[in-house]
Amino acid sequence: MIGHAAVNLARLQSDLDALAEFREPDQTGWTRRVFSDPYIRSRKWLAQTMRDAGLQVTCDAAGNLIGVVPGERPALVTGSHTDTVAGGGRFDGPLGVLAAIEVARCIVQSGRELTHELRVVDFVGEEPNEFGISCVGSRAVAGTLSAAHLALRDPSGGTLAGALESVGGDSGRIVDSAWREGEVHAFVELHIEQGPVLEDAGIPIGIVSGIAGIERLHMTFEGEAGHAGTTPMRSRNDALCAAAEAVLAVEQVASRGDGVGTAGRIEAKPGALNVIPGHVELWAELRHTSKEWLDAARRDLETAATEIGARRGVRTTIDHLSRTEPVICSEVVRAAMSEALGDLGLASRTLPSGAGHDTVQMARLAPVGMLFVPSVGGRSHCPEELTLPQHLDAGASALMATLLVLDAR
Amino acid sequence: MIGHAAVNLARLQSDLDALAEFREPDQTGWTRRVFSDPYIRSRKWLAQTMRDAGLQVTCDAAGNLIGVVPGERPALVTGSHTDTVAGGGRFDGPLGVLAAIEVARCIVQSGRELTHELRVVDFVGEEPNEFGISCVGSRAVAGTLSAAHLALRDPSGGTLAGALESVGGDSGRIVDSAWREGEVHAFVELHIEQGPVLEDAGIPIGIVSGIAGIERLHMTFEGEAGHAGTTPMRSRNDALCAAAEAVLAVEQVASRGDGVGTAGRIEAKPGALNVIPGHVELWAELRHTSKEWLDAARRDLETAATEIGARRGVRTTIDHLSRTEPVICSEVVRAAMSEALGDLGLASRTLPSGAGHDTVQMARLAPVGMLFVPSVGGRSHCPEELTLPQHLDAGASALMATLLVLDAR
Repeated sequence: MIGHAAVNLARLQSDLDALAEFREPDQTGWTRRVFSDPYIRSRKWLAQTMRDAGLQVTCDAAGNLIGVVPGERPALVTGSHTDTVAGGGRFDGPLGVLAAIEVARCIVQSGRELTHELRVVDFVGEEPNEFGISCVGSRAVAGTLSAAHLALRDPSGGTLAGALESVGGDSGRIVDSAWREGEVHAFVELHIEQGPVLEDAGIPIGIVSGIAGIERLHMTFEGEAGHAGTTPMRSRNDALCAAAEAVLAVEQVASRGDGVGTAGRIEAKPGALNVIPGHVELWAELRHTSKEWLDAARRDLETAATEIGARRGVRTTIDHLSRTEPVICSEVVRAAMSEALGDLGLASRTLPSGAGHDTVQMARLAPVGMLFVPSVGGRSHCPEELTLPQHLDAGASALMATLLVLDAR
Repeated sequence: MIGHAAVNLARLQSDLDALAEFREPDQTGWTRRVFSDPYIRSRKWLAQTMRDAGLQVTCDAAGNLIGVVPGERPALVTGSHTDTVAGGGRFDGPLGVLAAIEVARCIVQSGRELTHELRVVDFVGEEPNEFGISCVGSRAVAGTLSAAHLALRDPSGGTLAGALESVGGDSGRIVDSAWREGEVHAFVELHIEQGPVLEDAGIPIGIVSGIAGIERLHMTFEGEAGHAGTTPMRSRNDALCAAAEAVLAVEQVASRGDGVGTAGRIEAKPGALNVIPGHVELWAELRHTSKEWLDAARRDLETAATEIGARRGVRTTIDHLSRTEPVICSEVVRAAMSEALGDLGLASRTLPSGAGHDTVQMARLAPVGMLFVPSVGGRSHCPEELTLPQHLDAGASALMATLLVLDAR
């Protein structure tokens, strides 16, 4: 594609290994949560890696790291995130950032001049965090990070605004981090599939058709704490029993149609063996590429939780944490991907993304597209998360080829 | 009963208030968990309060605080515990210790000499703790605190043996803390009912017929963590869904007959909104005054949990944390209570105790009995836990009168 330059797999793997070492030493897996000490340290390394690759690096008011190869026309943007979930893996996020840097490095080293600016972004905090939102950095870039978001507090009482300072942001200038619609030519994100489809089919590259919308809910069950030995079963208002029914309701509601739903976090208080739990909090989400399915599933879950609470004398409240609408990927970007993959001789399949990505926010600014590479066993958000070397190579090559096709558009 | 001496309600209330102030400042309720800083500080105050009451105070190898009024014949023992559950109240435990001190103070001040030694005990750690056992101090006194117990570890890795040092114990000499059978004449514990029976009946004093046995279980559910958006519902091994079914199974099994059962603590990991929980731990207990009921309920729960795990592809393991057999209170002690209450003109009712108590361990050494006073709304193990002043007075008076009747036996 660019003659004498091609992505260097060994270099990409070396960067993935180096980034993975920034992690919580005492926790399972490769934990590098946004705003944590390992995260903050990793981004100093990342900024230097961008500079070494020949990029001009800045940190915006949201704390996003942005590396630029200048060009005349609106920016071709690519990137992803480097934060992980607790107990997560080494590829979800880092691959898209480090492959983007590798692509930029190849282009710079090749001496080839693109007609468009090339912009590599490491978005702050794509994974859900203690403030209860995800895609913090890409929201800021898309202009959707609101004052209400900045005022969100984590369990220790700190605000998201304060947390952004710790990653080099400046919440007072947050509006400056929003990009103008015309400044982006297209956005492409390379990511691991995080599911079993590509591996099962033996296909190295996925072209994403669209990204599932996500409805996130927080449920509170207020029963009555009491002695576990002296309160008759019929006199109880056990908040954990109510929450247990709600966990199963999430599963039941999501199993209709082809959606997914997960109760991922639960906290029961006081949490002693001999005390009836009086207060339980439950976090859940529903996902589907259809807006209508999401609406109906959310309604059904609310109805079920309310009925459970009423039947058990447990006060049930449901807060809507966030709603991300489904996104359809750009036909133009998908056509560029098909052309690029044809040139590379790489097989591909079109598939939806069940996972949310920074691409969802970027869709507000420009045509977007995503490339997937296989995940071994479909595993993700766990220490065993793995993408094989040949698929890392295929993904980075596909990303470079796609960007070069788009540069000509 | 002892002529010019009677329990002083104001003095007892003042002691209850003073002890309640030793608590975790940042936590709900009146939290003073065993081995915590507030607990350790409170017992310095308690030892001084015993000394001021005229008791000879020692701390045994288990960390039990023991105050003695010398006497010729085997000891009349009374006491309870001063540790609380997280988010607990001011009366569960403290009443039995502080009323015992008040009774001793009255007897010492009256100049009356008892024929029996009077021994007041503040037993270490009656409530379940981070090491997974309860009644630590009374087990030591009864000679049932084993080397295996001392080797138990809390989540931070410390041993129970080490924790005992922090409260003045000496685990190397633990055998010295066990009492000989012949040295105890009788044991009487005053406690709040922690249930609604006495209040509903408008009766100030309960004579406990027996104490429910307790079966404590720890269940582990090992499923598979995975991305909440990309793993189809039918491909999941969701450990939290399995645990939710188990919570409801505990409720169902316990609701047969007149037993109780509670899942009081749950921990789901990794605990992120967008990760399927792969590992969940659940703590549960079953209680009944019938040994046969306990055996059957435990078997039914194990069967249910195993079936749930098998159906969901979630590996389920069940550990037996502890089993406390039901205890029948002594006819002799109950007769002494009836005589004492008749003398005082206090109405009483006989009732079983759903809650476990240090009395269960003391039953290995001597005839035992318990006196209950009403709990407002039947509430306990919560900040609202309350016993009205007239019932505090009735309880302490009944304790003194019972001990004096027993002293004459």
